[in-house]
Amino acid sequence: MVDEDGVLSPGQMGEFSLISRFFKNQALTKPSTHLGIGDDCALLSVPEGFDLAVTTDTMVENVHFFAGADAKQLGHKLLAVNLSDLASMGARPLSVTLALTLPKADENWLAAFSQGLLGLAGRHSVDLVGGDTTCGPLTLTVQALGLVPHGKALKRSAAKVGDFIYMTGVLGDAGLGLKIKQGYPCASPDQALQRFNQPDPQVDAGVALLDVANACIDLSDGLAGDLGHILEQSQVGASLVYESLPLSNAVRTYINDTGDWAMPLTAGDDYELCFTVSPEKADQLSINCTKIGVIEAAPGLRLYKSGIIQPLITKSYEHFS
Amino acid sequence: MVDEDGVLSPGQMGEFSLISRFFKNQALTKPSTHLGIGDDCALLSVPEGFDLAVTTDTMVENVHFFAGADAKQLGHKLLAVNLSDLASMGARPLSVTLALTLPKADENWLAAFSQGLLGLAGRHSVDLVGGDTTCGPLTLTVQALGLVPHGKALKRSAAKVGDFIYMTGVLGDAGLGLKIKQGYPCASPDQALQRFNQPDPQVDAGVALLDVANACIDLSDGLAGDLGHILEQSQVGASLVYESLPLSNAVRTYINDTGDWAMPLTAGDDYELCFTVSPEKADQLSINCTKIGVIEAAPGLRLYKSGIIQPLITKSYEHFS
Repeated sequence: MVDEDGVLSPGQMGEFSLISRFFKNQALTKPSTHLGIGDDCALLSVPEGFDLAVTTDTMVENVHFFAGADAKQLGHKLLAVNLSDLASMGARPLSVTLALTLPKADENWLAAFSQGLLGLAGRHSVDLVGGDTTCGPLTLTVQALGLVPHGKALKRSAAKVGDFIYMTGVLGDAGLGLKIKQGYPCASPDQALQRFNQPDPQVDAGVALLDVANACIDLSDGLAGDLGHILEQSQVGASLVYESLPLSNAVRTYINDTGDWAMPLTAGDDYELCFTVSPEKADQLSINCTKIGVIEAAPGLRLYKSGIIQPLITKSYEHFS
Repeated sequence: MVDEDGVLSPGQMGEFSLISRFFKNQALTKPSTHLGIGDDCALLSVPEGFDLAVTTDTMVENVHFFAGADAKQLGHKLLAVNLSDLASMGARPLSVTLALTLPKADENWLAAFSQGLLGLAGRHSVDLVGGDTTCGPLTLTVQALGLVPHGKALKRSAAKVGDFIYMTGVLGDAGLGLKIKQGYPCASPDQALQRFNQPDPQVDAGVALLDVANACIDLSDGLAGDLGHILEQSQVGASLVYESLPLSNAVRTYINDTGDWAMPLTAGDDYELCFTVSPEKADQLSINCTKIGVIEAAPGLRLYKSGIIQPLITKSYEHFS
């Protein structure tokens, strides 16, 4: 029995029926999944010749999303940010577990959330193989497993001096989406909001970059900070050319309106891939991408804007700072 | 810089320095760990002939532990409950990821928490290979990966009519520990509190049960409910003999004092293994354990106490119910 607003009263739907009702109905698609939800562990096999890529990302209400955010979009985005981490290593997603902490068992919320998560999972043939459902402040964690041919994963530490720097897609649309949510009056908000609410993890692009790219990272915390991780771990520097950054018309209009030209470099949530390729391999690139700069020996990140170096902080968004 | 109570002010310690300071210093022990903390994903290899066992468990403040609970014990317990899930399938732990949602970056808390978690990890040669640290209400999630020989995992669904039912260790000590925390005056509280605060996952026992046991589960939510999962998934029933249950002196005293004889059957958190073995294989058991009942064809769980069947609800603790 469900009351008017779809909230289950205590005792009406427990943890186990909740799991089986909303999350166990996904058809398991991988021959490698031997056992899914319902035991103490899931059981998988990993084919010979592949490494297992492992990642986890958490989204917390009022930190990563606004209270009352659309549950279907949350389910999509939670999985997308994890698949994006796999994509940045060139790994093809295999399976995920879900740790769901919920203040209450709200049937409508759960139906929408699972629809968003399982919809994206289906498009990438990812099996939801297990999880834990607990009562508490809304906190959503996915752990994702992927496969990458042994020794081929794209690491942050593999950039070489002279590499060209590329990125997929456009920059700053998700940042603009956040500005729109915060009140910026955008004439054509749809693409920016879509990118902010339901990012598209670049799984196929990541796999296509194996044997072509050197270093790779996904743009979750902002280009300047994320590229900064590549520079730090590869012990190199870089120059970016502002005029070469791929910006949508809506982001260009935002910059013209506000003067906030640095937004695309510092805003997060784009979930595009940023990667480096040696000049000799540049003609092997088979994906749509834009060259935005070059890796150099001198440490630090230099941004050329109208031919002049602009100060740019390479710090990502950090919790607790 | 740290203020008097060890709480870092905003800007003093960000997410990345927190991770590297408290969680990156563990020496990675597994030759299968190719890349640990610090990139978008960790990279592991899974040896041929093994299945990967995957599990996740969350602990939430004020739900799974009291506010102000000892951080070192929390770190231990969070890992222990996940290793216990691996143990119940007969899987040897391989590596874990940690999703840590914290209200603030409290240096003393983090030092103690990581000491508890990494201490237990070291004793079981588990590599902490990645994680996510976010700001929010205290919520702790571990995802654990383990290895079990292909096709050999101990499943809940594998109990057979006629199997003997066994458990490792003693029953109800953790439940007594909770009663002590809630005010029960126990004359010898140390063992019960130790079992409640820092359970010992039965990893070696689980591995020793491969090729011997049929079904297995770990006692996280109470014997009646957890055995109930085996019965439901194996489509069988069972009889338990109350007088055969392994109870510590402290639990026997508690029952004499209070009359609460059902506590050991319904209290959770013991993290012992409960498993079934066909009579023909009973002499192959190489671990310390106690026979407590038998699997039967008739559905349901029958508890014989002083020769009389007692009503017993086989429902585990469920969130939201």
